[in-house]
Amino acid sequence: MTAAESAPAGVRAVAFDVFGTTVDWRTGVAEQVGAVARRCGAELDGGAFADAWRERYLPSMARVNGGERPWAYLDALHRESLDELLERHGVGAAFDEAARRELVRAWHRLPPWADAAEGLARLRGRYVVAALSNGGFALLTALVKAAGLPFDCILSAELARRYKPDPAPYLTAARLLDVEPGELLMVACHGWDLAGARAAGLRTAFVARPREKGPAGGADRAADVPADLAAADFTDLADRLGCP
Amino acid sequence: MTAAESAPAGVRAVAFDVFGTTVDWRTGVAEQVGAVARRCGAELDGGAFADAWRERYLPSMARVNGGERPWAYLDALHRESLDELLERHGVGAAFDEAARRELVRAWHRLPPWADAAEGLARLRGRYVVAALSNGGFALLTALVKAAGLPFDCILSAELARRYKPDPAPYLTAARLLDVEPGELLMVACHGWDLAGARAAGLRTAFVARPREKGPAGGADRAADVPADLAAADFTDLADRLGCP
Repeated sequence: MTAAESAPAGVRAVAFDVFGTTVDWRTGVAEQVGAVARRCGAELDGGAFADAWRERYLPSMARVNGGERPWAYLDALHRESLDELLERHGVGAAFDEAARRELVRAWHRLPPWADAAEGLARLRGRYVVAALSNGGFALLTALVKAAGLPFDCILSAELARRYKPDPAPYLTAARLLDVEPGELLMVACHGWDLAGARAAGLRTAFVARPREKGPAGGADRAADVPADLAAADFTDLADRLGCP
Repeated sequence: MTAAESAPAGVRAVAFDVFGTTVDWRTGVAEQVGAVARRCGAELDGGAFADAWRERYLPSMARVNGGERPWAYLDALHRESLDELLERHGVGAAFDEAARRELVRAWHRLPPWADAAEGLARLRGRYVVAALSNGGFALLTALVKAAGLPFDCILSAELARRYKPDPAPYLTAARLLDVEPGELLMVACHGWDLAGARAAGLRTAFVARPREKGPAGGADRAADVPADLAAADFTDLADRLGCP
């Protein structure tokens, strides 16, 4: 099979998950947590804290999608998880309101994977490329700007007021981009995201991010994720989609 | 008064009107109408046709905002105006479905004003810069991409399902950018747009585009438009906002 043959036919736009797929949330959050903790005189393992914080991510969004609570911005969900985690670690008293706000904003400024900007720039020559994340619109705009990622536009679950993997954000993205769901390719390093995209009628591309969850591993692997195509990173994805 | 003194205090994000303010719709539409008409064997003055088409723009959107008709995309409004205008010019038979679709899409690809990209790039160094137009999200994404304009994000009246100058698109833009209305500066070359923005609580900047309506003039002038500041073009705006 040649690279060109792996491109799903009829794709007109490509939507990229952000946390984990495009940016290295764990390294970014761990560093910022470590720095704020040191300043506050608290002992915290930034990496482990980032993992525990992220573990609360899917359950907190599931409560919104399941109707247990009304729409809440990702920042608000992050703040609730943060408050709970700081108490659980017995360091709540060390982090004042300003420190907690700063920590929530750690998710607004995260380092991109090394291949992200170049891969996007190549893909952008042929497709409309959009960010499609559960992060809020303002968060994503700030993050994409700071990371220098050449997206054509920002999309967010906020525009549908439902979180991925609910079908609404995927279908809202297709509607706003004026393409059929089957003309939109969702790129992610998470099986749950691609399963949601597939259920909504989108095409899917898995990108491996083996270091997403840190040195201990645990990231999703291509062999375990059903998808229309799989790529090693964004430049490999550009190769497979025939983008010079 | 120095240039820096003209910057409204507290502005965190800048939203730009697109048709007329950022891109030269008249030149772009006139050329494309002329080319399609020649191919269809019809005689049409592209510039006059573009003017007549644009004249139907505000009334058609006012019918949506006034509740006379449900939300309709700008493409649909453009198509209705186009069909009516072709009949009125007695050339309806010359333009088949494909030609009419191509003409509607002329509004998706328009040349930027010469100062637009550089001015935006400078402003982007200090502010979040967004496109905020009555054009649909997909239209704007395509137009901004083709014109190479370095916006941080695309916003559209489509996200509020109300057209400017209704307050909803301005307030939706502020909400999505996570700023207060008074922290968002609306830039436009049209008094009606800035009046709408001001009524919604935004700050306003007038940019003169004396050639917007062609060589015959008729463009809005700074002296007639109440605004927090006025600039000659986007580079002058960047100067006034202290963006190197």
